[in-house]
Amino acid sequence: MTTTEKPDYKVIGTRPIRPDGVEKVTGKALYGADIHLPDLVQGAVLRSPHAHARILSIDTSAAEAMPGVLAVVTHSDLPVVADKVLDMGEGASTASDMSKNVLAADKALYRGHAVAGVAATNVHDALTAIEAIKVEYEVLPPVLNVQDAMRDDAPLLDASRHTRTPTGEESENASNVAAHNRFEGGDVEAAFADADIVVEREFDTKMVHQGYIEPHNGTANWNSDGTLTVWTSTQGAFAVRGALAELLQLPVSRIRVIPMEIGGGFGGKIGVYLEPVAALLSRKCGRPVQLTMDRTDVFQATGPTSGGHMRGKIAVKDGKITAAEVSLAFEAGAFPGSPVMAGAMCMLSPYEVENFKVDAYDVVVNKPKVAAYRAPGAPNASFCVEQLIDELARETGADPLQFRLSNSAREGTRMITGVAHPRIGQEETVQAAQASDHYQSPIEGPNRGRGVAGGFWFNAGMQSSVVASVNPDGTVNLIEGSTDIGGTRAALAMQLAETLGIEYDSVRPTVVDTDSVGHNDVTGGSRTAYASGQAVYEAGLDIQQQMVARAAQLWECEAEDVEYADGGLRHTSDSEKTMTFAELAGKQMETGGPLQGRGSVVARSPGAAFGVHVVDVEVDPDTGKVDILRYTIAQDVGTAVHPAYVEGQMQGGVVQGIGWALNEEYYYGEDGRMENASFLDYRMPTSLDLPMIDTIIVEVPNPGHPFGVRGVGEVPIVPPLAAIANAVHDATGHRFTELPISPRRVVEELHNLQ
Amino acid sequence: MTTTEKPDYKVIGTRPIRPDGVEKVTGKALYGADIHLPDLVQGAVLRSPHAHARILSIDTSAAEAMPGVLAVVTHSDLPVVADKVLDMGEGASTASDMSKNVLAADKALYRGHAVAGVAATNVHDALTAIEAIKVEYEVLPPVLNVQDAMRDDAPLLDASRHTRTPTGEESENASNVAAHNRFEGGDVEAAFADADIVVEREFDTKMVHQGYIEPHNGTANWNSDGTLTVWTSTQGAFAVRGALAELLQLPVSRIRVIPMEIGGGFGGKIGVYLEPVAALLSRKCGRPVQLTMDRTDVFQATGPTSGGHMRGKIAVKDGKITAAEVSLAFEAGAFPGSPVMAGAMCMLSPYEVENFKVDAYDVVVNKPKVAAYRAPGAPNASFCVEQLIDELARETGADPLQFRLSNSAREGTRMITGVAHPRIGQEETVQAAQASDHYQSPIEGPNRGRGVAGGFWFNAGMQSSVVASVNPDGTVNLIEGSTDIGGTRAALAMQLAETLGIEYDSVRPTVVDTDSVGHNDVTGGSRTAYASGQAVYEAGLDIQQQMVARAAQLWECEAEDVEYADGGLRHTSDSEKTMTFAELAGKQMETGGPLQGRGSVVARSPGAAFGVHVVDVEVDPDTGKVDILRYTIAQDVGTAVHPAYVEGQMQGGVVQGIGWALNEEYYYGEDGRMENASFLDYRMPTSLDLPMIDTIIVEVPNPGHPFGVRGVGEVPIVPPLAAIANAVHDATGHRFTELPISPRRVVEELHNLQ
Repeated sequence: MTTTEKPDYKVIGTRPIRPDGVEKVTGKALYGADIHLPDLVQGAVLRSPHAHARILSIDTSAAEAMPGVLAVVTHSDLPVVADKVLDMGEGASTASDMSKNVLAADKALYRGHAVAGVAATNVHDALTAIEAIKVEYEVLPPVLNVQDAMRDDAPLLDASRHTRTPTGEESENASNVAAHNRFEGGDVEAAFADADIVVEREFDTKMVHQGYIEPHNGTANWNSDGTLTVWTSTQGAFAVRGALAELLQLPVSRIRVIPMEIGGGFGGKIGVYLEPVAALLSRKCGRPVQLTMDRTDVFQATGPTSGGHMRGKIAVKDGKITAAEVSLAFEAGAFPGSPVMAGAMCMLSPYEVENFKVDAYDVVVNKPKVAAYRAPGAPNASFCVEQLIDELARETGADPLQFRLSNSAREGTRMITGVAHPRIGQEETVQAAQASDHYQSPIEGPNRGRGVAGGFWFNAGMQSSVVASVNPDGTVNLIEGSTDIGGTRAALAMQLAETLGIEYDSVRPTVVDTDSVGHNDVTGGSRTAYASGQAVYEAGLDIQQQMVARAAQLWECEAEDVEYADGGLRHTSDSEKTMTFAELAGKQMETGGPLQGRGSVVARSPGAAFGVHVVDVEVDPDTGKVDILRYTIAQDVGTAVHPAYVEGQMQGGVVQGIGWALNEEYYYGEDGRMENASFLDYRMPTSLDLPMIDTIIVEVPNPGHPFGVRGVGEVPIVPPLAAIANAVHDATGHRFTELPISPRRVVEELHNLQ
Repeated sequence: MTTTEKPDYKVIGTRPIRPDGVEKVTGKALYGADIHLPDLVQGAVLRSPHAHARILSIDTSAAEAMPGVLAVVTHSDLPVVADKVLDMGEGASTASDMSKNVLAADKALYRGHAVAGVAATNVHDALTAIEAIKVEYEVLPPVLNVQDAMRDDAPLLDASRHTRTPTGEESENASNVAAHNRFEGGDVEAAFADADIVVEREFDTKMVHQGYIEPHNGTANWNSDGTLTVWTSTQGAFAVRGALAELLQLPVSRIRVIPMEIGGGFGGKIGVYLEPVAALLSRKCGRPVQLTMDRTDVFQATGPTSGGHMRGKIAVKDGKITAAEVSLAFEAGAFPGSPVMAGAMCMLSPYEVENFKVDAYDVVVNKPKVAAYRAPGAPNASFCVEQLIDELARETGADPLQFRLSNSAREGTRMITGVAHPRIGQEETVQAAQASDHYQSPIEGPNRGRGVAGGFWFNAGMQSSVVASVNPDGTVNLIEGSTDIGGTRAALAMQLAETLGIEYDSVRPTVVDTDSVGHNDVTGGSRTAYASGQAVYEAGLDIQQQMVARAAQLWECEAEDVEYADGGLRHTSDSEKTMTFAELAGKQMETGGPLQGRGSVVARSPGAAFGVHVVDVEVDPDTGKVDILRYTIAQDVGTAVHPAYVEGQMQGGVVQGIGWALNEEYYYGEDGRMENASFLDYRMPTSLDLPMIDTIIVEVPNPGHPFGVRGVGEVPIVPPLAAIANAVHDATGHRFTELPISPRRVVEELHNLQ
């Protein structure tokens, strides 16, 4: 661990057991599909068999007449909603697009697009009934990648859509390009003209899925008084509440979203899919309705992340990057909203680049609408930029890490958005990777190679609020509204314990529903340990302040004469007068009643995260299989609240990046059918495929957080794609510009079979 | 309605629909037995067939070996606990007594006393298994009433128990009398000697049950990390948490109690019965365990209220009550803790009585341990005192209400405890009854009579805490921890709306579990609308104050220049600058994040409640049936937050009092078996038995509450017993000193058949 000066924390930096751990490993934790209610009925969803088709008619009468069927709904049961952007945290959409994605309107835009929902007394009747729904389709040719979609003669998903151009105007012709944005700075042309070396390449990546274990689910109970309760596994109960309010045109105060435990999300469980359908079915049949997906539904009908096409060109003069010109075109799926802008804004941020021109195209295709996926957009974009940088380093004869260090961004460096970095740990992270045992050890043997890559992620702040209640025995209940995906119950409890100077075990954190705590934005953007942690700190200070007032009351002195320190109270001038936290907690009834502390923040200084990865690979020239021999990740995490969970995030991000680099892809037939929509065929790495991922925690505290916390969850997935491609190049001499670097592709490339 | 001057409230005093109403009438609300969990198993409880028996041995081996049986527990599975008083709100007990009541230790002390618990994969296996448990009993003679129990040669329930005497010492001999307390003031002997008239009588009442619709239930999940979650229908989730912490010797922070909806409690759902047994079974079998009672269990093994024996003597001189001497002996059931002290302290409180001597005996008998029941102790005690007062009024020739008015307590009058009344509405309430159409109308016809009686109840304060969160659309979520029995969600939401100057519909109240809000004492003592209402008011002020600061921030002025008024903000010197609550709610993100207000109180000025009842009866001399012809209740409620719910409380209390007066009783055989342990044989009044109960709301605001609220739920059950006895006397000339005044007893008395 590389750590700059930091205070002598008592709880932060330790590795206690998470409060939800035992329930989860013993199978007692309740996930969305575990909820059971009296009179609960099950539902099923009819999905389009076509990737692109006009829906001419839907006849539900036969299904409605079937035994056991209680309700059937289609898009016509949804209210008309405005074309208003829904702020869901990561991953934007408009209400009208989300409404059409939840249940197809006039067109089915991808295979698996929901067309109708059925509720029945049991799931078998529901599944039988959806087959009895008669849908008349006019099948249309699908567009399945950005290049095809951007052609002038491409079939249009929406004939009324025009491109929003960099000037904010709309294109003359209808297009599958929803938006074209541009960042420009300096004098790109002059810099390229003046360069020592210029490299330029095109890159392609494929649509990939987050691959969380738990499929989506939604259970809804719509009462006859118009109040709606929804149980769901989501990254953000308030985001679901907000989306349902728009989609169903209900006030937020009529909707209660109860977040169940979540079996992975990675950005993919922010939007709504089944929840509105379950709600409509419940309203129609007057009973609670449960919908769940199977794995095929998850692949075909939830939000993966974009594949896309990229073209990059970077210039170097005197060992310094002087110019970059990059064009990114990302698949949005069926409706606008790819993470192409995030990719554009991240890919150059670890470096000082004065002259740049970056184009970003958001392109609709006949695939599921993409959702957020861990640092959305950045891994693909870095796959382009970090390979070009690798090539530049090689051509200049520089060590690839030293080359990155020489070009590193630091405090004050402006990103392409014009925003200057605050104190960041990019240089420290590169240096940590350089100094690692891994990087210091040679790599030897045939078909072996080493690659490095860097990565950047903004991290998000947004709103959090918590309440902490002091029990008479000196323990504290912490009420929070952030879904716990990666151990945030523990990370928040630790920050409250640190603030109050009490033991970790004295804090019991609980994630509650949307009626039971103030607004909390989504668990995404790596924001929870940071922003909810800041709210927790505020709540701790609120308790401290009340305790000081109560101690003053008991000691019959002024509050100014009492200070809160070392987990208790003391009189500043009378050393006899001290009280522990627990002692005062036991005197709540005598001093004004139950002690509650509240904390609310709009967190605005998340502190960016930087990571540098080093990977060794061996490529089997006969089978094309790439083995990961060794992997080291160095990352600036600000302050590691719970180092084990920080390491877990780092390792998890790397593993997902490895899958994306080597195996994962949505594999489509020409008819627009995903041909590998199961975990058997969609190959994700398992622990048997991988070595231990070595972690180097770099701690450059975030000046925008009381404990220096930065988000850690997303940036680890950014560098692996490029790092592995760079390593494979080092091993084989071949540069792979298309993902995945699968056995087939390696064999084709090495043996020139394409 | 009689109302003293009160502010022009906008929400308080209206009659909106309760937030939980639709869920409850449509059957969707979740009660304790509705909870379903994955792997949930069912349990059953073996109960003693004997009213008094030594348990020589328990052999559970055969039951444990039966198919489907997962766990068997007995008292030996409970930890040894201290003889420490458990503060459960209404109804006190020691931890060791409660432990022995939950599962019998060396003795079974009443028929139905729990002896062992079984968990099995289904309830049928559990019920079969309890029959296979072999218990060897040494059957002992039971004592079934206080007179028998107080005899020197009475069988002793606990041979180590000595009477705690008024001096605080213990009696020499072991006794069934657990405690004898005395209140003395003035010169009783002299006052009696100097009196114009003295009346003296003895009275008897029987054990009666609250008769709530929903039987007790408890579902527990004991995790392998030692955390315990309990779902139960209870009047106080924190009281259950506290009791479980003591009984199971766990820290409170390891226990989460999730309060389900409650189908009536009336004081009877404060203690724990099934919850600890379910917890022990869950710990043993590693699965969640659910236990429920049937009606016979509820009658035989939960806490009804005491029957007892009373002797009263009151003197009058010149129309004024000059002395009272009353002795009360109340059944505690199997363990100490009858409400005799409360009865002693209440019965004379509506009046000015200078010279008094009151003895209170708490007596154990072989019946279920009593629990709180609506104004516990006061109805029985008033049955004695209010009949004596009736007799005195008659003997002095005074109108019975005018006699009460002449003797009424008022602000400054000292009760027998020495505490002086603050501003009370006793006189206003008597006057309201006097002025009623009912009292002004004559009663005519044979066998008809009219009776009146008064009553007093302290009301309780205790601790409450709430949090209110502002939604972006200007609605507010109110998080509270008080079980909603009689409409307190509405009553609290109304007080928050009033405080903030917003609409009732803008507040959405939610009752949450013990992990999700600060400490809240039990819903009992008529405290919730009053004390939690005060916490709600504090939370509202907290929001007001934060809003003022935020408006100042937006208007770039000092907070002193902004005031909160009329549901919004305004600049005190710039009339252009105003903002509604909803407008500022919509600017939370720009002004510091989610707005949460907290409120905590130890409420110490509940404000006593007084009621005066007028009842007309007709007695059928042949069958002995007493019909209630007309009933009017006048009550000082302070301020009626939701008048319809206040009226409901008044009417409900009267109806329960009528049942107690005319029909209800625990009817025991000599063997100590309750012979009417079903709703068929335990006759409670139905709507067909009763006329509309007319209500007169008297509003003398409680100076100890921001809106003047007093508790209203308990005092209405205090006068009916005596009022009806007085009416029956008026109709028949016979004074009934023993309850119930059932057809049998009326016929025996009128026809001299006893």
